[in-house]
Amino acid sequence: MDKWLVGIDLGGTTIKLAFVNFDGEIQNKWEIKTDTSNQGKNIVSDITNSLNAKLIEIGKNKDDLVGIGIGAPGPINPLNGSVFEAVNLGWEDFPLREMLSDTSQLPVYIENDANIAALGEMWKGAGAGAKGIVCVTLGTGVGGGVIANGSLVQGASGAAGEIGHTQVILHNGYECNCGKKGCLETVASATGIVRVAMEEIEENSNSALYQILEKTGLLSAKDVTSSANEGDSYALKVLDQVSNYLGLTLANVANVLNPEKIVIGGGVSKAGSILLDNIRIHFEKYAFERVRMSTKIAIATLGNDAGVIGAAWLVKSRLVK
Amino acid sequence: MDKWLVGIDLGGTTIKLAFVNFDGEIQNKWEIKTDTSNQGKNIVSDITNSLNAKLIEIGKNKDDLVGIGIGAPGPINPLNGSVFEAVNLGWEDFPLREMLSDTSQLPVYIENDANIAALGEMWKGAGAGAKGIVCVTLGTGVGGGVIANGSLVQGASGAAGEIGHTQVILHNGYECNCGKKGCLETVASATGIVRVAMEEIEENSNSALYQILEKTGLLSAKDVTSSANEGDSYALKVLDQVSNYLGLTLANVANVLNPEKIVIGGGVSKAGSILLDNIRIHFEKYAFERVRMSTKIAIATLGNDAGVIGAAWLVKSRLVK
Repeated sequence: MDKWLVGIDLGGTTIKLAFVNFDGEIQNKWEIKTDTSNQGKNIVSDITNSLNAKLIEIGKNKDDLVGIGIGAPGPINPLNGSVFEAVNLGWEDFPLREMLSDTSQLPVYIENDANIAALGEMWKGAGAGAKGIVCVTLGTGVGGGVIANGSLVQGASGAAGEIGHTQVILHNGYECNCGKKGCLETVASATGIVRVAMEEIEENSNSALYQILEKTGLLSAKDVTSSANEGDSYALKVLDQVSNYLGLTLANVANVLNPEKIVIGGGVSKAGSILLDNIRIHFEKYAFERVRMSTKIAIATLGNDAGVIGAAWLVKSRLVK
Repeated sequence: MDKWLVGIDLGGTTIKLAFVNFDGEIQNKWEIKTDTSNQGKNIVSDITNSLNAKLIEIGKNKDDLVGIGIGAPGPINPLNGSVFEAVNLGWEDFPLREMLSDTSQLPVYIENDANIAALGEMWKGAGAGAKGIVCVTLGTGVGGGVIANGSLVQGASGAAGEIGHTQVILHNGYECNCGKKGCLETVASATGIVRVAMEEIEENSNSALYQILEKTGLLSAKDVTSSANEGDSYALKVLDQVSNYLGLTLANVANVLNPEKIVIGGGVSKAGSILLDNIRIHFEKYAFERVRMSTKIAIATLGNDAGVIGAAWLVKSRLVK
């Protein structure tokens, strides 16, 4: 097929856009800044203008596009494609699908950002070919997407995939942005990993991590994973604790869904095998035997492209049955 | 439609059989004993003979039946409909679908027993009309079934729904039959509830539970729930602990799947509102806000009929698209 799918990954800082063919290959990709001024009211026209400009630039026209898939940073109302709330954009009950299809004159399909990343990894990434996938994104927060029998699980109120808010610490857990205490996100997001590292850093003043803190005045999750990679024993201990929480959560999710693949993405996942191997050790401890034998864990492979590819898949999935 | 569906719930002690119409109403139901002698080799012919005898008894014939749905007590190989293992029946890699369709000359659809109970509750029970359901069966063990987007989640190796083996106690948990420690089943099955009750019963010698133990020499889960219902403070404490484990597990499952309904079945669920109310209190503590607002918990309504109705649904779902 010669026509293209449009995939858009709408974030709080940048909007990633791509033309994707029906084989999931990116033909053009670019990004624009997210204008969050005035409660984000310019975002939709910015997207449409940017699409039109790109078409002119590459000598294509709207007839070459079959539709737009877009991932938004908040829960979606599946009935009308509005965004219930996107704090980062200043949106509340924002009629994204309606406005974007009005201005673009193309069919628009909408999902939340964690879900389109999961769909991208299912189509062309670490989960390619699998019918059951759980994606976990370890970034500023901990997000997730669940695919069962080849389709996205959205949940009764669009809140499926909130793996970051499963409870992993029952007593005296850290406060989470969601209002609960002891959520996975409080100990396994980038911020959470630093929080775990800070717990006993004073008692580990001979560690490489302590020296980084002394020198720079602050720690990052990357400091933890790279120091662990270099063999720093305190960093390894922190990574082990974080991996224990992740292994527990992922095993419990897998005990319920037995997916073929669990895909770990997001900035923290760039730590690679030292993280993956640690998570696997704890996962195997907590997983039911048949699950342990059949559910595989892998690092996401599409990086920042997962969102636009998954958003394009949304369009394709509605057209090709 | 005048034709009937056959629903069969194959258990370790009895085999429940029913003729069910396309509206999910049972037309005839009966049961036979499960003959587990000789590694369960007579089970298939017993089923076929019983079906034939019942048809004669009620003046119907095989043309009135469209197919057989059957739930078996073990994981199913979805590729060929064989039962990987059913310890209670003495089966290993048992070609149930092939044998039953040979002897009955009807199409046969097969699932595990927890899954058909979930399907039954989705079709005609506490989950009627919902597209996303998680069923938990609190009986001798703790089983589960997961329905997402209206279809059963089987999992990569048929092990989806093993909610009983999610880890709820991280340190010093009881040993579980599955080989792990600290699984939900060890504290929330009928046996598990008694185990929790026995923990501090000596320190609670003024409790009603202690008196039952003194008098009869043993406790049952029903003793715990009925004593709690009568206001015995130690029984209430035990029920609270069990409900905390259940609330935690169900909230974490709901944080990932956000089902419309969580349906609690099995013998222990007969305790009714005292159990349900307690579970809800803990569930609300652990659930992500949007999940807490949209995922409802209910007690199963079909009782022992859930299996045969769900098995009949299996047949219907393959015929009516």
